[in-house]
Amino acid sequence: MNRGMNRAVLLRRAVQGLPSAEDFVLTERPMPVPGPGEVLVRNSFLSLDPYMLSAIKGRHMSGAADLDQTMQGDTVGTVVGSNDAVFAIGTRVIARGGWQEFSVLRALPAGAGGIDTLTGPYARPLPPADPDIADSAYLGVLGMPGLTAWAGTAILAPPEPGACFVVSAATGAVGSIAGQIARNLGARVVGIAGSAEKCVYAVEALGFAACVNHRAGDFPEQLAAACPNRIDGYFDNVGGRILDVVLQRLALRARIVLCGMIEQYQAETRLPGPSLAPVIGRRAHMMGLVVYDHVARLAEWQQLASQWIREDRLRWREDRAETLAAAPAAFVRLMQGQNFGKTVVVL
Amino acid sequence: MNRGMNRAVLLRRAVQGLPSAEDFVLTERPMPVPGPGEVLVRNSFLSLDPYMLSAIKGRHMSGAADLDQTMQGDTVGTVVGSNDAVFAIGTRVIARGGWQEFSVLRALPAGAGGIDTLTGPYARPLPPADPDIADSAYLGVLGMPGLTAWAGTAILAPPEPGACFVVSAATGAVGSIAGQIARNLGARVVGIAGSAEKCVYAVEALGFAACVNHRAGDFPEQLAAACPNRIDGYFDNVGGRILDVVLQRLALRARIVLCGMIEQYQAETRLPGPSLAPVIGRRAHMMGLVVYDHVARLAEWQQLASQWIREDRLRWREDRAETLAAAPAAFVRLMQGQNFGKTVVVL
Repeated sequence: MNRGMNRAVLLRRAVQGLPSAEDFVLTERPMPVPGPGEVLVRNSFLSLDPYMLSAIKGRHMSGAADLDQTMQGDTVGTVVGSNDAVFAIGTRVIARGGWQEFSVLRALPAGAGGIDTLTGPYARPLPPADPDIADSAYLGVLGMPGLTAWAGTAILAPPEPGACFVVSAATGAVGSIAGQIARNLGARVVGIAGSAEKCVYAVEALGFAACVNHRAGDFPEQLAAACPNRIDGYFDNVGGRILDVVLQRLALRARIVLCGMIEQYQAETRLPGPSLAPVIGRRAHMMGLVVYDHVARLAEWQQLASQWIREDRLRWREDRAETLAAAPAAFVRLMQGQNFGKTVVVL
Repeated sequence: MNRGMNRAVLLRRAVQGLPSAEDFVLTERPMPVPGPGEVLVRNSFLSLDPYMLSAIKGRHMSGAADLDQTMQGDTVGTVVGSNDAVFAIGTRVIARGGWQEFSVLRALPAGAGGIDTLTGPYARPLPPADPDIADSAYLGVLGMPGLTAWAGTAILAPPEPGACFVVSAATGAVGSIAGQIARNLGARVVGIAGSAEKCVYAVEALGFAACVNHRAGDFPEQLAAACPNRIDGYFDNVGGRILDVVLQRLALRARIVLCGMIEQYQAETRLPGPSLAPVIGRRAHMMGLVVYDHVARLAEWQQLASQWIREDRLRWREDRAETLAAAPAAFVRLMQGQNFGKTVVVL
């Protein structure tokens, strides 16, 4: 702002398989100027999320990431210039501001809803600031990842008290919240994560009953041991082999929420899925979850989550990168499972 | 009986992939003698069903087919000798009589239910004879296949009026009934079958709106054309590639009943399944169906089915083989998809 320039990260080339930092380029552009009814927002935090790889490959419902264009992504920030009656300067907002320091946005039209609300260039005001909760929480526990976790765990497939509820990517932005919601609903929660360190965190900080490292050679046996009465509920953030292993341990009438497919995001072709024979044999229900369907209930989730946070029954962890220039490397780490908590870039 | 001998078909050797008639052997054994509380039943019809291959490979919940033992299977027959107060001579019964001409059975204990009812050596009396309906119907439309179709179509995933409901193995024992139930509930039914002749039958005799031959080179395109508003409901009897193609044409919030997996029955190893990405993207629900869960409602289904039969709103077709000696070849035809209608052996 002081230089009158805006830095942005563009997609430089098509991504084969996993991304590398060289797939992106940091550029400087003239500061955008808000038109009538628009505001200029200085972005404070940028959310990095696995679906972005799907968007880069042109396969995500939020839209495709185009070559030589600014990467899309959710941000929180502050209005620094306003031609809009609703948004005074200083208003804290959440928006799809993109991988850039400043964004021009406009107020969400009255009556707007659904996916357009979330993928368009609209700013929504944040709730009043809480000295104990950084605004970046609205990109995680109090935002789409938290709502995703709640929709799957409390709306689509609520566990019975005492049920064995398994969650993958158990320390990630969605999985860590889903597991704690299930625990708060009375389930016995077993996490699946990608390192021993993450598993320790899942048990000690998140209060899961157990956590299994899927990179261990005897992962299927460890999972079976952690779920002696088999698996009643599964919140799947990864797909692939982990889903296949879980399906082989289902209890009767188990419920599986399908939320993410990391391997498929990376692949250039359609990958096969797991054998569905256990879904028949165990009379399981398998449900697809898209958070956009549940946006109308975001405030309800935020209220519940805020209460649980005050009671120390809901914790989260951020994996922060500093400055926009660090965003590509942070995204690469996320897609390799090397993040530990919700990935956020501090701008 | 007149010779005092009982003919039976035994499993002669382990089956690799698809069965052949040489995997079985017809033997003669002494006529079995009913003990106290038991009856001797002359079997009239033997049901042949795809799950039997799964049992041969030791993977079916009804139990494994053992080498050198009589093949298990459902039969209808008549009591010809009785040491039981309930079953007078001449009583028509349904039972798991096996691939043999005579069986020793006993009355179902009071209060028995669930899978034991169906896999044990228990005889249940048939409803009063109907001159218009052969007793073999109790192995098909009025028995487990019909109940399976009803459970999936009317209980697990009832279609909305006007919905596009797709069923595979559309002229088979289960699929033909499932499709007609969906049609009677107001759905627009599209069948998937393995020959042009079967597709003609599905449309002209069963009243489906359309039927697509999955052996056609452009099967995916034909299915898309037959379901221009995508697929709201799918009753899957086959799994494999057909399921994968259907998933790519799902409508939002589609419901899929998984009932059978022909390819998996044949395979020696666990086969992968379809990509589940469309289940997420379309927010679909996928449900496993096991008919044993619904046995308590068999009489209810029989009553409804009988009414529809009287109104000519429910039709079926049998693929009959004559004499027990023909059973192995008939089973091979069934597992190759060469049957046309419910496979029944007339003993």
